[in-house]
Parts: sequence; structure tokens; C-alpha cells
Amino acid sequence: MEYPSKLIEDAVNEVAQLPGIGKKTALRLVLHLVKEHQNKTQTLTEALRKLRANIKFCKTCHTISDDDECSICHSHRRDRSMLCVVEDSRDVMAIENTAQFRGVYHVLGGIISPIHGIGPSELTIDSLTARVANHGGEIKEIILALSPTLEGDTTSFYLHRKLKEYPVKITSIARGIPMGGDLEYADEITLGRSITARILFN
Amino acid sequence: MEYPSKLIEDAVNEVAQLPGIGKKTALRLVLHLVKEHQNKTQTLTEALRKLRANIKFCKTCHTISDDDECSICHSHRRDRSMLCVVEDSRDVMAIENTAQFRGVYHVLGGIISPIHGIGPSELTIDSLTARVANHGGEIKEIILALSPTLEGDTTSFYLHRKLKEYPVKITSIARGIPMGGDLEYADEITLGRSITARILFN
Repeated sequence: MEYPSKLIEDAVNEVAQLPGIGKKTALRLVLHLVKEHQNKTQTLTEALRKLRANIKFCKTCHTISDDDECSICHSHRRDRSMLCVVEDSRDVMAIENTAQFRGVYHVLGGIISPIHGIGPSELTIDSLTARVANHGGEIKEIILALSPTLEGDTTSFYLHRKLKEYPVKITSIARGIPMGGDLEYADEITLGRSITARILFN
Repeated sequence: MEYPSKLIEDAVNEVAQLPGIGKKTALRLVLHLVKEHQNKTQTLTEALRKLRANIKFCKTCHTISDDDECSICHSHRRDRSMLCVVEDSRDVMAIENTAQFRGVYHVLGGIISPIHGIGPSELTIDSLTARVANHGGEIKEIILALSPTLEGDTTSFYLHRKLKEYPVKITSIARGIPMGGDLEYADEITLGRSITARILFN
């Protein structure tokens, strides 16, 4: 596509580098900003600039935070005996949204993926083992809440091997047929596991 | 969704105001920027800021442009006897991309849509009639290239009534079955029109 304006072209090229945004969507977004009042673009760019310049990562759990310590780690109402290990900060938000977990988190910053060149040393695994070693008495259970993919399972397995020397219970989130899911269309592994890991009807 | 960070929340709220971007997509984009180097966010926001601050609209055809006159109106190689009327600048880019049109354009800046409160006075229709009146001898044909929707057809009809007093030929882009389209799934109006407006096989 040729653009009638260098300004448009530059903006489209930048926006199209965002994940899941192609050139056509980028052009639509950019032309939307052109149509709107200039203040709109200013508040948008200012919010992004401020975010990137000031965002921090919690020194304890590595989730994104406005301060050196995130609001969850800072809170006195969280149960520090339960530690939930997740891939990234988005998972923390998703689990917080369920209001089913009152423990604390540990954000790995990714999962082990040799194809993408991500090994254990790229993740916050050392920080996790240090946390468990130093607060061993306090942490009673570690819940591995990683995606049920090949990489997620590999990471869970690796973490299990690393953590089993400590006196903590290591669990994993349940796998099974999701709510509203259709048995007929569930894959064999999920369906098989949902039968072997069946739960008592109450 | 609750966010662990005010900076994230502000950025998500701003990004989610873009068309077609919901809160979840906004969060994904924002977290992508947080992961990337700070320069990335800087070049993105700078491109958007520059665009919005410096973009102009061509004084002749009203398409977006870096200068007071767009490159198409400025060019001496365009056929000024053909004037193509479109809804917005994106349509100019789309038609330019086909390389099938060597005339000049007129961007209406929208289409007549009473539901959205857009009447003829909100559009550049006066500028269009002035252009035709002042360069009447030069402009031989006006091609109405508006979307084949109720609003598009209304606008075309309105323009036709406004322009028929001038000695110009008024045409409309062809409607019919699109390339790769399936007759079976074409709507009745399109299929009916494609038969009455059939073209000679050559």
C-alpha cells in the first residue's frame, strides 16, 4: 500500500509493529486519531509514555507494579503460605479477577521454550527458589498455574524438580473440560485426564 | 478487570478507546510495550504525536496530506477531466492501489447519515460544487465511488441532484458479483443488478 503522506506512513509502520495489528488495522487506527481532536492523541501518547517510563516490577513477585513492591505483596490480608507461580502479569490479573485465590504470586516472566531461546536462566526461577529457601517455613504450598501446553508442562516439570527438595506441597491447577465445553469436541488427552482426575460429586 | 497498576489502567483505558480495540486487546498491547525496550514506546508515541500535530488536508481535494496540496492534486501527470468522489482518505489509498485511475479525487469526509447526525453541510459538498462550477470546462466526468449501502446511495443521489445542472457526465462505480464471489451466496439485489447491468463478453 502506498500512503499519500509520510506522516501517515511512519505512524502506520510504528503501530503495525504491535502484536496482532496488521497494516490495514494500523491505518484504521491512525486515521481515527487524525479525525479526532488533537487532545485525544496527546492523552494517549502521554499515558503510554508515562507507563513505559515509570512502570516497575515488584521486587518480590516480579509482577508489574507502580511501586517497588506490588499491592498484593504489600497487603497484610494475603495468605503468604500459598504461592501461585504464573507465566506473566496478565495471569495474575486473570486469577485476581476470579476472587478465588488469597495467596501471593510469583511471575516467571515467560516459560521454558528452547525454540524461542528461553531457558530457565531467562526466567525468575532462581528468585523463586531463593524465596522458598528463605521463607521455607512460611510457604506451605506452591501452585503451578502454567498453561497446559508442551512448554507449560516442561516448565512445571522443571520447577517441580527444582522445588521438591524443600518441604512444600507442590500442586498444579486442575485440567479438565471447561465450563460450557462439549464432551464430544474435547481432545482425547483432556477428556482422558478429566476421567482419571474425576472429583467427588457433592 | 482490576489492574495491579494505575499506570497500566490509564494506558489500557486510553488504548481501548481506539476503534475495534477492547480492554483485553488493549491490555495485550500495553503489556507488549512494557516488555519491549523503552525506545520502542518512544518512537511509537513520537510518530503519533508528529502525525496529529502536523497532518494537513489538501486544500483542493481534502485528502490527508503532509502539505497544503496533496501529491495527487500537485502532480502534472493526473487527468484533471476525471474527478472521483470518495468518502474518506482511505478510499483514495485503496483506489490508488489498484493503479486503474489516473484522475483526481474529492474526499467528502463522510456520507450523509441522519442517524449519526451527518447532513450535507457536514461534508465537503459545497467545495465540490464550487470546484465543478469554477473548473466546469475542465472536469468532464464525475465518478461517484461511494459504498453501496443505504447511506452511500443516499449521498450519491443527493450529489447527482446537486451536480446535474453542470455539463458533466456523472457515473458510479460498477456493482456486481465480486471476483471470487459465489453466485449462490450473493444477495438478491446484487445478483439482480449484475444481470440488468450485464456487460458485453470480449
